[in-house]
Amino acid sequence: MSRITCPDLSSRVVTADKAAVHIGHGDRVAMSGFTGSGYPKSVPGAIAEQARREHDEGRDFGIELWTGASTAPELDGVLAEAGAVSKRLPFQSDPAMRKSINAGDTEYVDTHLSHSAQQAWFGFYGNLDVAVVEVAAILPNGLLVPGSSVGNSKTWLDLADKVILEVNSWHPRSYEGFHDVYYGTRRPPERLPIQLLEPMQRIGDPYLRVDPSKVVAVVETNAPDRNLPFKAADEDSKAIASHLVDFLRHEITAHRLPPELLPLQSGVGNVANAVMGNLADSEFEGLTAYTEVIQDGMLDLIDNGKLASVSATAFSLSAERAADFNENIESYKGRILLRTQEMSNHPEAIRRLGVIAINGMVEADIYGNVNSTHVMGSSIINGIGGSGDFARNAYLNFFVSNSVAKDGAISSIVPFASHIDHTEHDTQILVTEQGLADLRGLSPVARARKIIANCAHPDYRDRLGDYLDRAIAENPNGRHTPHLLGEALSWHGNFQANGSM
Amino acid sequence: MSRITCPDLSSRVVTADKAAVHIGHGDRVAMSGFTGSGYPKSVPGAIAEQARREHDEGRDFGIELWTGASTAPELDGVLAEAGAVSKRLPFQSDPAMRKSINAGDTEYVDTHLSHSAQQAWFGFYGNLDVAVVEVAAILPNGLLVPGSSVGNSKTWLDLADKVILEVNSWHPRSYEGFHDVYYGTRRPPERLPIQLLEPMQRIGDPYLRVDPSKVVAVVETNAPDRNLPFKAADEDSKAIASHLVDFLRHEITAHRLPPELLPLQSGVGNVANAVMGNLADSEFEGLTAYTEVIQDGMLDLIDNGKLASVSATAFSLSAERAADFNENIESYKGRILLRTQEMSNHPEAIRRLGVIAINGMVEADIYGNVNSTHVMGSSIINGIGGSGDFARNAYLNFFVSNSVAKDGAISSIVPFASHIDHTEHDTQILVTEQGLADLRGLSPVARARKIIANCAHPDYRDRLGDYLDRAIAENPNGRHTPHLLGEALSWHGNFQANGSM
Repeated sequence: MSRITCPDLSSRVVTADKAAVHIGHGDRVAMSGFTGSGYPKSVPGAIAEQARREHDEGRDFGIELWTGASTAPELDGVLAEAGAVSKRLPFQSDPAMRKSINAGDTEYVDTHLSHSAQQAWFGFYGNLDVAVVEVAAILPNGLLVPGSSVGNSKTWLDLADKVILEVNSWHPRSYEGFHDVYYGTRRPPERLPIQLLEPMQRIGDPYLRVDPSKVVAVVETNAPDRNLPFKAADEDSKAIASHLVDFLRHEITAHRLPPELLPLQSGVGNVANAVMGNLADSEFEGLTAYTEVIQDGMLDLIDNGKLASVSATAFSLSAERAADFNENIESYKGRILLRTQEMSNHPEAIRRLGVIAINGMVEADIYGNVNSTHVMGSSIINGIGGSGDFARNAYLNFFVSNSVAKDGAISSIVPFASHIDHTEHDTQILVTEQGLADLRGLSPVARARKIIANCAHPDYRDRLGDYLDRAIAENPNGRHTPHLLGEALSWHGNFQANGSM
Repeated sequence: MSRITCPDLSSRVVTADKAAVHIGHGDRVAMSGFTGSGYPKSVPGAIAEQARREHDEGRDFGIELWTGASTAPELDGVLAEAGAVSKRLPFQSDPAMRKSINAGDTEYVDTHLSHSAQQAWFGFYGNLDVAVVEVAAILPNGLLVPGSSVGNSKTWLDLADKVILEVNSWHPRSYEGFHDVYYGTRRPPERLPIQLLEPMQRIGDPYLRVDPSKVVAVVETNAPDRNLPFKAADEDSKAIASHLVDFLRHEITAHRLPPELLPLQSGVGNVANAVMGNLADSEFEGLTAYTEVIQDGMLDLIDNGKLASVSATAFSLSAERAADFNENIESYKGRILLRTQEMSNHPEAIRRLGVIAINGMVEADIYGNVNSTHVMGSSIINGIGGSGDFARNAYLNFFVSNSVAKDGAISSIVPFASHIDHTEHDTQILVTEQGLADLRGLSPVARARKIIANCAHPDYRDRLGDYLDRAIAENPNGRHTPHLLGEALSWHGNFQANGSM
């Protein structure tokens, strides 16, 4: 049976090439997609082709590209390779796009994922010309069933002058009922409280709405989401997970956490999966999650009964796990809810629910300032994503990393972070495979002693301690956050000059 | 008539010296007070005396001192001078306390002002032994009428094992009815939405509650709040205010702000008063404020009818303006509401109301990272206060500063901020007397060009541009946030070595 049962919209089905002609040079184009899920698979490639043709003929062609978060080679990749993106927001992780940004060819605006929809709506980014949104089905009344992510699709459909829909039959038709699209947002001064009290509470509609008069094209596809290979947790990830879960036990004993914890948020990656793996083998029961992304590890945790339910905005599964989920989707109904990213990452909801936030970091300085985004201060990796949304508003926040990178040439604990995404005021608990530093209620120097002792790699511990001691000695009137500014960034300089810090 | 009309509590009136014996070495002691308003005037001096006696006899005596925010010489000053404070949170601005912190004698935990009450309640800072809270009156039923600030008093009274009350008859008895103390807070997972829709909406009680069985002493005083001399706005402050208010007009024209604006928040100081002065002479009508502190300029704006109402947590007035307010307090009833600082600074309320946040800064780097707290990276000035609460959750945020300090020896725009309190992801609009840089929706390099052109002092503009150009040239694969790490903090080093950047 066709996925497009709305007569009006089914009459607008065209090829991706035909759809792409609605997008011109200089347009602001917003697409669906979050962590490689639910992004349009077909129109971006056609835009890239168009860009190449224009460039070949000596004409400019570049668009501003907005999404939910990261997408995939068929979207960020092809457009970046075609030199077709002048500006990008709010998050990316594609190698070609990253290269274009770091070459200075694409401007990148790295915003909190909870902020992107509202700031677009406020008019801070200019008028939105076209939205390209992937869905699983179009209902007879024109309502849209999202697929494996919701992201910013609601806002893009609301704001865009023109809309292109991609209907991807790879997504199970049974996705209907898995989504909660909140239509109660207002702009100040008309905003209302978000009446969300529990992670799984429905506060919106199961469908996306679109004004049919704006739909200029509908494209049919059948293509899988990004293939993200699952990496089994290594020893370091397991050690990090073990320190972290032991600390949660400690907090329960101290009556600062209930036995079933509080809703979990976990960033994407190896350590996140390791934490889920650790919890799967633990005594914990009745866990919940209020998070951005559902990875393999979280599905496993649902399967084994530890995790009662998950609210998120997207999946980010391995190909095997996605195939399995799509086959057994019915069994997850009522235990998974996908929201708009402005709700999954909403400060109000995160703070109220008391989320336990677990996010990766690139490096932390001895005082607890965290770099989540940059290599050696200048080159962007991906972006801040939701780490700030969650960490800033969480009940507890953890930042996790191996203590060293590049076979020990880089220390993840440095005198001064080369970029700061989360400040000393916001970071609570740092974890490496070496151990855990609980920074709550500590002054900067006390934090530094603890981070160096518990988290730094032994190869760097003495030098960090030496830096701190000399900074204290040489700043008789600056012992709150003592630094040697001439030396503070020299570890990064050492790496750049000699290949090792 | 006595201010203590509760028979039970009036029987516990003692001298400050007698009250102070309830406080011992190692105690955690939480006091009322916010920006020099509503702090206890008498018991802190008695504790300081006790500390001196103990020290003279060779015994240790130090307390952890928690407050609402900054206090005054009679509290932070005397205790710091007596060497009686081992740890201090969440904010301070007293010269003696600052000296003790920067000498490494007092540990300082610089937390967001909205976080301090909840984190204390969560148990992140340990058990609270004693609360010392100033009030304007004790009612027959034991309820407490706060004075010129609410701050964290509600939480300190709730959490402390023992309570000492100071009843200060300098505060007008007519303060009754000026306060809104929200008793609906819960800890996760029991938290509820805060049903606040407008700055002046009452959501709590006019009184503070205290369990009378915890009250170990009541002390009577009659002493004014901190005498903060009012400084008339200088030309630079007026220029900053003018750029800022012109920008608000521009946003109204662009339909991104309503004609009556959105609720204003304004940090403490010269520029804040200049902005209020500018608005007082403007065409604006029906303004509101949802802020921390009410300064002279805001009262003037109420007096001339431009400002309809103000929600805050404290006053911070000059002696003359305080005397005038105390005399005419009845005329302000219904137009001023003092809340707990967890509500005045609450992320949920600030975001919902769409506050326009205006805060000072020490320096910003070319990419828009803002330092609000440190001189040359190491020495703390005051603390982050509420600037993060407001900036992070505001509809619009402004950070303001003169473009140079120390007669031009210091540039407020630098290649790399020596401390970062507000990251590039959070800062929107920078203003100096030179001009305004609207950073919304811009990539880091575009931000840098604008900040250098619009905000930097002409004496530093070329050198900043040269830094940026060379950083771009020398980072072919790092042009997202190009830095020369060997040089990034050298401006501060120049100042330390040669007295000029």
